[in-house]
Amino acid sequence: MSSLADLEARIENDEQNLNQFFLLLMGAIVMLMQSGFAFLEAGSVRAKNVVNILVKNVLDCFIGALIYWAFGYAFAYGDVSADHPSAGANRFIGFKYFFSIDIDDGTGFFATWFFQFVFAATAATIVSGAVAERCQFGAYMIYSTFITGFIYPVVTHWTWSGTGWLQNQLIESMHRHTYDADGKLVYDVDNPVGFVDFAGSAIVHCTGGIAAFMGAWVIGPRIGRFDKEDSTMPGHSTPFAALGAFILFLGFLAFNGGSELAIVGGDHAVVVAAAFVNTIIGGAAGAIFAVTINYVVAWIKGEPRYWSLLVTINGGLAGMVAMCAGCNVLHQGAAFGLGAMGGITLMWFSWAMKKLKIDDPLDAFAVHFGGGIVGILATPVFMNGGVVHWKNCADQKDAYSAAFPAVTNPDAEGYFSCDHFEYKVFAWNLAGFLAITLWAGGLSFLTFYSLKLLGILRVPKEDEIKGLDVGKHGEPAYPIEAYLDGQIPNVPKFAEDMALAQRRAD
Amino acid sequence: MSSLADLEARIENDEQNLNQFFLLLMGAIVMLMQSGFAFLEAGSVRAKNVVNILVKNVLDCFIGALIYWAFGYAFAYGDVSADHPSAGANRFIGFKYFFSIDIDDGTGFFATWFFQFVFAATAATIVSGAVAERCQFGAYMIYSTFITGFIYPVVTHWTWSGTGWLQNQLIESMHRHTYDADGKLVYDVDNPVGFVDFAGSAIVHCTGGIAAFMGAWVIGPRIGRFDKEDSTMPGHSTPFAALGAFILFLGFLAFNGGSELAIVGGDHAVVVAAAFVNTIIGGAAGAIFAVTINYVVAWIKGEPRYWSLLVTINGGLAGMVAMCAGCNVLHQGAAFGLGAMGGITLMWFSWAMKKLKIDDPLDAFAVHFGGGIVGILATPVFMNGGVVHWKNCADQKDAYSAAFPAVTNPDAEGYFSCDHFEYKVFAWNLAGFLAITLWAGGLSFLTFYSLKLLGILRVPKEDEIKGLDVGKHGEPAYPIEAYLDGQIPNVPKFAEDMALAQRRAD
Amino acid sequence: MSSLADLEARIENDEQNLNQFFLLLMGAIVMLMQSGFAFLEAGSVRAKNVVNILVKNVLDCFIGALIYWAFGYAFAYGDVSADHPSAGANRFIGFKYFFSIDIDDGTGFFATWFFQFVFAATAATIVSGAVAERCQFGAYMIYSTFITGFIYPVVTHWTWSGTGWLQNQLIESMHRHTYDADGKLVYDVDNPVGFVDFAGSAIVHCTGGIAAFMGAWVIGPRIGRFDKEDSTMPGHSTPFAALGAFILFLGFLAFNGGSELAIVGGDHAVVVAAAFVNTIIGGAAGAIFAVTINYVVAWIKGEPRYWSLLVTINGGLAGMVAMCAGCNVLHQGAAFGLGAMGGITLMWFSWAMKKLKIDDPLDAFAVHFGGGIVGILATPVFMNGGVVHWKNCADQKDAYSAAFPAVTNPDAEGYFSCDHFEYKVFAWNLAGFLAITLWAGGLSFLTFYSLKLLGILRVPKEDEIKGLDVGKHGEPAYPIEAYLDGQIPNVPKFAEDMALAQRRAD
Repeated sequence: MSSLADLEARIENDEQNLNQFFLLLMGAIVMLMQSGFAFLEAGSVRAKNVVNILVKNVLDCFIGALIYWAFGYAFAYGDVSADHPSAGANRFIGFKYFFSIDIDDGTGFFATWFFQFVFAATAATIVSGAVAERCQFGAYMIYSTFITGFIYPVVTHWTWSGTGWLQNQLIESMHRHTYDADGKLVYDVDNPVGFVDFAGSAIVHCTGGIAAFMGAWVIGPRIGRFDKEDSTMPGHSTPFAALGAFILFLGFLAFNGGSELAIVGGDHAVVVAAAFVNTIIGGAAGAIFAVTINYVVAWIKGEPRYWSLLVTINGGLAGMVAMCAGCNVLHQGAAFGLGAMGGITLMWFSWAMKKLKIDDPLDAFAVHFGGGIVGILATPVFMNGGVVHWKNCADQKDAYSAAFPAVTNPDAEGYFSCDHFEYKVFAWNLAGFLAITLWAGGLSFLTFYSLKLLGILRVPKEDEIKGLDVGKHGEPAYPIEAYLDGQIPNVPKFAEDMALAQRRAD
Repeated sequence: MSSLADLEARIENDEQNLNQFFLLLMGAIVMLMQSGFAFLEAGSVRAKNVVNILVKNVLDCFIGALIYWAFGYAFAYGDVSADHPSAGANRFIGFKYFFSIDIDDGTGFFATWFFQFVFAATAATIVSGAVAERCQFGAYMIYSTFITGFIYPVVTHWTWSGTGWLQNQLIESMHRHTYDADGKLVYDVDNPVGFVDFAGSAIVHCTGGIAAFMGAWVIGPRIGRFDKEDSTMPGHSTPFAALGAFILFLGFLAFNGGSELAIVGGDHAVVVAAAFVNTIIGGAAGAIFAVTINYVVAWIKGEPRYWSLLVTINGGLAGMVAMCAGCNVLHQGAAFGLGAMGGITLMWFSWAMKKLKIDDPLDAFAVHFGGGIVGILATPVFMNGGVVHWKNCADQKDAYSAAFPAVTNPDAEGYFSCDHFEYKVFAWNLAGFLAITLWAGGLSFLTFYSLKLLGILRVPKEDEIKGLDVGKHGEPAYPIEAYLDGQIPNVPKFAEDMALAQRRAD
Repeated sequence: MSSLADLEARIENDEQNLNQFFLLLMGAIVMLMQSGFAFLEAGSVRAKNVVNILVKNVLDCFIGALIYWAFGYAFAYGDVSADHPSAGANRFIGFKYFFSIDIDDGTGFFATWFFQFVFAATAATIVSGAVAERCQFGAYMIYSTFITGFIYPVVTHWTWSGTGWLQNQLIESMHRHTYDADGKLVYDVDNPVGFVDFAGSAIVHCTGGIAAFMGAWVIGPRIGRFDKEDSTMPGHSTPFAALGAFILFLGFLAFNGGSELAIVGGDHAVVVAAAFVNTIIGGAAGAIFAVTINYVVAWIKGEPRYWSLLVTINGGLAGMVAMCAGCNVLHQGAAFGLGAMGGITLMWFSWAMKKLKIDDPLDAFAVHFGGGIVGILATPVFMNGGVVHWKNCADQKDAYSAAFPAVTNPDAEGYFSCDHFEYKVFAWNLAGFLAITLWAGGLSFLTFYSLKLLGILRVPKEDEIKGLDVGKHGEPAYPIEAYLDGQIPNVPKFAEDMALAQRRAD
């Protein structure tokens, strides 16, 4: 029979296994988001560029896997050590475990690597939509490698690694310390106050979104995109776009819920569940606000008004992006509000991009940067304990004094001091948002501009007109010869009739 | 080192987390069924109405989330209390937790809410197929809100809440009581005998199915649908219909297996696994019987006979719907039988609908009501311990007396009395089926008929002919301008040739 | 309060539930691979045969479920008993549990059945691609029944059942025995050295791959396939092929990770996670090597060079197939190497098939047999402790002697003897690969050839030219009448113009 220690070890072991399993499963669903983006994009481009966008999405995931194995993970998480967060850790960039060398398998590395990789792949793939239908295949692969292998990993090192400069800031906070039996203050070193971005509104989506902006701006609009004031350039298959959207909606549940990183050994499931619920409610609010704005604005302007599927989809996505930062700490009412703001911001950014004549075929910037900015800045305001929730300092002091009546000396440790925790989180989030935007935006600009100067960023004009599928990939999406031989019963007859008509006319 | 009590608390906590995780994961897969229905429907409508059906499916899920958060959950589960099932509970409708107010997060509310919401969304979305291609966008949203927020929640309060009138019926039953050390009878209060519908053959699918019938009946057939005796109105993309079906087949595993509501802390996994296996076998039987009947009937009638993909799909779905009520308590042989009955009933109901000239483009009524009626009524007959399995009263008494030889006094508690448990379950299931059908059918009829009287149920004739996508949504599914510019190599030449032919002809 | 024994029993019960849950979940994702294959194939055939390939894929899964329930599981796992591996077990074929009779539910049978069934369905469905566009519906169903019910189950009995002749070979090996406190050798009877194929490079993919070869060879090429030297016969929808591929990439994670069969009660999660990571890296290497070879070879030959999506997809699949045998025991560097070899072998086999004028529309043989042969033969070479890793005998002896200095007598049990473990595994894998190929290839040839002699293997020439959808299934994939009525705004006008042109020309 087992001893108590045996059972404890067995439980401990089961918990470790289950937490890794949780990461693997959530990661697998997040990986499926690659196909979500692929089909959202494939449906939103013209038929002549479908294969191009699909092969980019398949290969950026595969190349990303190799690069993240070789470099990305090392830059992101390569100096996390037992004495974490250590004073000696590099706060800017990691430097160990290239090519998974020197990894100790027993630590759950593989599950962590997989989960972090699929997030990196998500950040990278956001960009593919913004430069669709005109970007050189090789140039895209170079950029994609760079964001997966360097730009994004550095951002995660700043933040999620736990040793970066953005999260390793120990701030004395009433929220973040506890008191021992003597009423003495004990700082919660493991949970310093700082940048709060649970699932990556800024870390993933502002990074991907600003990179998408730079790509779309530097490469220039598609030929004919802004020829007329009201010209549009619709994608070839709305159902494919919807298919991608449905997959992404599912993916965001795992993206946001999985960011809890564990399922047993605490109250993790409640957090994961709250993340699920808030993601749905935020997405719903974003979709409904976006589609309604689109309808009402047209009404006001006296234009034909439509319930647009694509606006609904993008609104839902922007609402879910806005949930990333705080889906674990928002009430459902706040989730509704942030989602709605996400939908509104999307419409505003999308309109601005058109005014600026920057051609972002998928509205990748408006969805991801627009939703991301709402998430990162509004979360500290509306979260549980956030700016709008928190009592003023006098009320805080009363509550605190009631809880710790023993500490009456203003000089004693543990005496209440109003720390304005919620404003500090806002300030850190603002700082982090700016730093990430500058870093990712700056490097993306440099990369795309360098590729442009080298003349390898954009396809030649004739290729763009002809379409990239036939010219670059040798594979039209819908080869005409696969549709003959009587599948569509009337087509051959139709073609015969026409040939006849032509012969007779000649 | 931890104490025994520490370990027990830790195990307890892990189990709670894992059971919530199970609900979230199964719920996420059930949510994916939204895209399954969307593509089954999108593929089954004509190309001019594809965007309309997709935007309906996206928005009914999102609006449903908000409504179920605001009202639905409260009506369904809003008076479940610690003294459950309490005499004071409202047996008709719940009345707490609107907008998730006053919820105690620690109870696993979020996971439960999410799981129950995706079931509500499933019941609602069944209807969209039946009124496809002719229902006003706004009218559908009103109806969808009503079923998600009221009709379906009340049905679940009657049944799955545990406090409703349909399941809270304590019947003395040999099956449902046990005997204490003295051979004294102890009623199993937590498991009263009554209505048995594990995953919702009646609760979800008869509700959705009868609502679909009312919608299709009140709104009337699509223009031209029954112009000729043998006229059909095929959908525009069989592959999309198949895509939806594959997603739904996966979804039914989670729908039926997830209804166990827990995975650890009992023998739950065996039940979940049995539900998976029976769902597959029932679906297989349904598909094979339906497609074979379709083939053989055509043969007998001397018509061209085909192996129809769409009949196979619907047969599989009907078979899986028939599994919902009893997938946890059926042997695989019985699952085969019920699945086959589901497939047969589907064909019969589908034929009847055509005879009645009620136009249900997706056969939503035949699949969900047909499969549902088989599940709810045949489960008490064929389940383990059901009518066909059970021994007669004399045999039961012998078995019982052998097990409890001490109780020989006919007046003593615990003395055997043949309770005809299995017939009682059948009677309750019949009563529940009728009550649900009347409730959901009646309210659906009233709603649709009111919308009709208001003149906002059906789109104008010219919009229906033109198609809803261009007129209502401004987004054709396949914009012709996205297919030019040489993607299909021969098309521009083809078009040029024709233009030339025409010019010459002029 | 619970006793220690209570807690242990509770942990034990939770672990059993969780391991079954793991199997069910991984199995559900593997079942989704059915839709992956369906869409990869549907996109790769011409529009006139889309419904045919889809209905085959739906029905082979459903019929497979019934057959595997009736026979397949019994042949595969039908004599596993408590004294496993027992001397009395039949090493060739199982013989119990037909129709799940005599099953003890408490043993986790349902979860195991489900997981094994979805693997059987995978092996069967590989074949459908190879005989696409020309195989009789009935003949395919007969073959599919035979492989799911007999050919594949027997292969799994040889191997994964644990009682078959290929894995039940006890070889004395330094790796597979341990030493007790006295330094005495203890053989690890539960882990005999023998055939190593973790997730089925040979068991599933060589079985399916060689059957695909036989099918494609016996049935002969599609009409017109090899009319010209460089003729191709492209599929009708590259996006559908890509959709299938994305689903399959996800599926392979579960296919390979799930083969660990458990998640708690050991260090299972680390193994599952390693399988996930290696599957991604192997797939990436396969995709990149295949697409690059395709590009470079065209360059060398002076032909137009393309970055092909379909080659990328097949390369990724071949790389993942190559991971199956050893994804649990490969370092990521080795995974990269094996994946690359998978991609290379794919290109080579695909080229050979074209040279042999064997028409395999999906390259099912090249992907599955090509990837499979790499996995089964290269794993013993490159795995941790494999041929290239292992020290020579002198070094082994030094390491061993340092670990067990007490055993100095050459005649004592436990004295080091160089057993060439890694070469033995290679030899067993080679033997197993040959046996499986001969068994599955031989029986497949006999089946297809018999069907050919009976004249029911191939559709009549006129049906093949006309397409199978309209003739056999009565359902064109894209019915022309579903695209009229103004959905594509310009088409009716276009048609009118043409009709006018024709009338004028007449």
